[in-house]
Amino acid sequence: MKNGLGPSGGSIDMVLLDHGSGGLASSRLIKEMFLARLSNPILDELEDSAELHLEGIRVAFSTDSYVVDPIFFPGGDIGELAVNGTINDLAMKGAEPVALSLGLILEEGFPGQDLARIMDSVARSARQAGVSVVTGDTKVVPRGKADKIFINTSGLGLLLHDFPLTASRIRPSDLILISGTVGDHGATIMTRREGLGLDGGLSSDTRPLHRMARALVDELGPEVRAFRDPTRGGLATSLVEMAHKAGLSFEIREEAIPVRDEVAQVCEILGLDPLYLANEGKMIAVVSQDAAARALEIMESMPESDGPAVIGRAVERGVVPVVMETAVGGRRAVEMLTGEPLPRIC
Amino acid sequence: MKNGLGPSGGSIDMVLLDHGSGGLASSRLIKEMFLARLSNPILDELEDSAELHLEGIRVAFSTDSYVVDPIFFPGGDIGELAVNGTINDLAMKGAEPVALSLGLILEEGFPGQDLARIMDSVARSARQAGVSVVTGDTKVVPRGKADKIFINTSGLGLLLHDFPLTASRIRPSDLILISGTVGDHGATIMTRREGLGLDGGLSSDTRPLHRMARALVDELGPEVRAFRDPTRGGLATSLVEMAHKAGLSFEIREEAIPVRDEVAQVCEILGLDPLYLANEGKMIAVVSQDAAARALEIMESMPESDGPAVIGRAVERGVVPVVMETAVGGRRAVEMLTGEPLPRIC
Repeated sequence: MKNGLGPSGGSIDMVLLDHGSGGLASSRLIKEMFLARLSNPILDELEDSAELHLEGIRVAFSTDSYVVDPIFFPGGDIGELAVNGTINDLAMKGAEPVALSLGLILEEGFPGQDLARIMDSVARSARQAGVSVVTGDTKVVPRGKADKIFINTSGLGLLLHDFPLTASRIRPSDLILISGTVGDHGATIMTRREGLGLDGGLSSDTRPLHRMARALVDELGPEVRAFRDPTRGGLATSLVEMAHKAGLSFEIREEAIPVRDEVAQVCEILGLDPLYLANEGKMIAVVSQDAAARALEIMESMPESDGPAVIGRAVERGVVPVVMETAVGGRRAVEMLTGEPLPRIC
Repeated sequence: MKNGLGPSGGSIDMVLLDHGSGGLASSRLIKEMFLARLSNPILDELEDSAELHLEGIRVAFSTDSYVVDPIFFPGGDIGELAVNGTINDLAMKGAEPVALSLGLILEEGFPGQDLARIMDSVARSARQAGVSVVTGDTKVVPRGKADKIFINTSGLGLLLHDFPLTASRIRPSDLILISGTVGDHGATIMTRREGLGLDGGLSSDTRPLHRMARALVDELGPEVRAFRDPTRGGLATSLVEMAHKAGLSFEIREEAIPVRDEVAQVCEILGLDPLYLANEGKMIAVVSQDAAARALEIMESMPESDGPAVIGRAVERGVVPVVMETAVGGRRAVEMLTGEPLPRIC
């Protein structure tokens, strides 16, 4: 009955926070509750965005709801997160974002000035990313029936390259890159929410990644195998999912993974692992061995990156999907997130 | 300060239930809070779905969040509503729905069997409408931070005809049709929620309207001027919005508007007007005078309609946008909904 999963046929007794963690329980909920009923070749891919073929053009389509608490935090707010998050889901397929929808669920009594501030953020983030909000919807529920504001954004993008960006294209010897430090968003939200007074210097990394993704694809073409933005569940969970889909194993070096000092300190105090903390402006890129040096240069040249690094490589499938060489020279299996360290991270 | 609107520059002090009613306060919130910041030619149209031009093809894109309470009701549930509602937003532009996204916000502790029942509805409704759910997202919030389940669906459709369906194409002498009885959904939710024991025979009209819309457009072409599904705010609000956009007035005959006996009775007891109650499976169609008889025949031939009728006509702009000839022979102005008779209707 771990994770609320019933004993027979995977029936789920009750929805738990863990089911929204982006980790193992989320994955089970998706498979048992949603794929079992809604299965189709596009949905079954479980990519960050769906790839559709419409009258000869290829379109990426994605959706995400944002329930982050607090709604304002160092480095951003729920509005900026909602715009950048959906743009990034499109970007991970290499799509050029074209249009966003905006669906608001507001709690009765929500202050107009907070709403105005969030909408200013939405407008600014969309403008900076070069994307328009083209359709919207607003619902208001009575006081106590929602917590302040929830935002859904769905996004449409154009796929301009002629090969799929998907983990199933990863080959042994391909290299795994990360575009910058990990754990910044998760550590920021956690310390701010708990009022721990630890958040000096911490800031969310929310940012749009589509320009960096397009730059990599435009120059390196199919040498780029796949992208993923490690949001809920963190870097560790995304790597396990990619390795599974690739049918390979990933070997990662702990020392190569960039972590900001402030994030490392918070993690040490709170007993957290930065590899499981959410990121909102980082991408994993898996590229061919030959293209890796140039990919790193491209990342380094762009303002979206902060300390990109090669963190590991793909190898033939071993005993576990992801194995990490630790700083002290040991080797350990990296698992998907289990248990919810931090609900409402995004 | 009516409707929570501040005295200066339309600033909104606080979000009220009325801002989600689909009526006048919603319209003000949209203009002052959203259009003021996010304005672009597509969003500014404020149609049920946005029309996008992607590499030479025309696409409709729409979003809607569903927060209906209760989540199960006679004639449907929140899952069916979420699928049909977004399909209908696409259908009102004459689009062929192609793909839906599904974003869930779940309250911790929500029963797995209720979620399974809702997902069964989503799957069945999508199958019946011939549309696939291609991408999704699930968030879980702690107990008490949301009410059971909220669903966002966004939809993509193909626009296959070469003229716009929009109220600005309406001309004087055009006729206004409704595809069936009004107020069924609103009356059902209201009586069920209040536990009034009045709901014998009442049932939501939730259903997909895209086939009926396409049949009208395919046969009558540009003689069809515009469609609208009168959801929140009811028939009255939709008519006022359409007349405004057309720059014309509409003359409506009260006796021509089909209302089920059970709905009329509930309205009489509760002091409500069926013209302001939500519909979830009805469409307003404005067509040329010459095409109206055939439009009515097409509607009558389809299972989606129940007692379609010509309810009025467009005339040159008069003193008020919508005027109704009452059953007793008087004439009165029809206004948009003001005040929220019933939050969480959809």
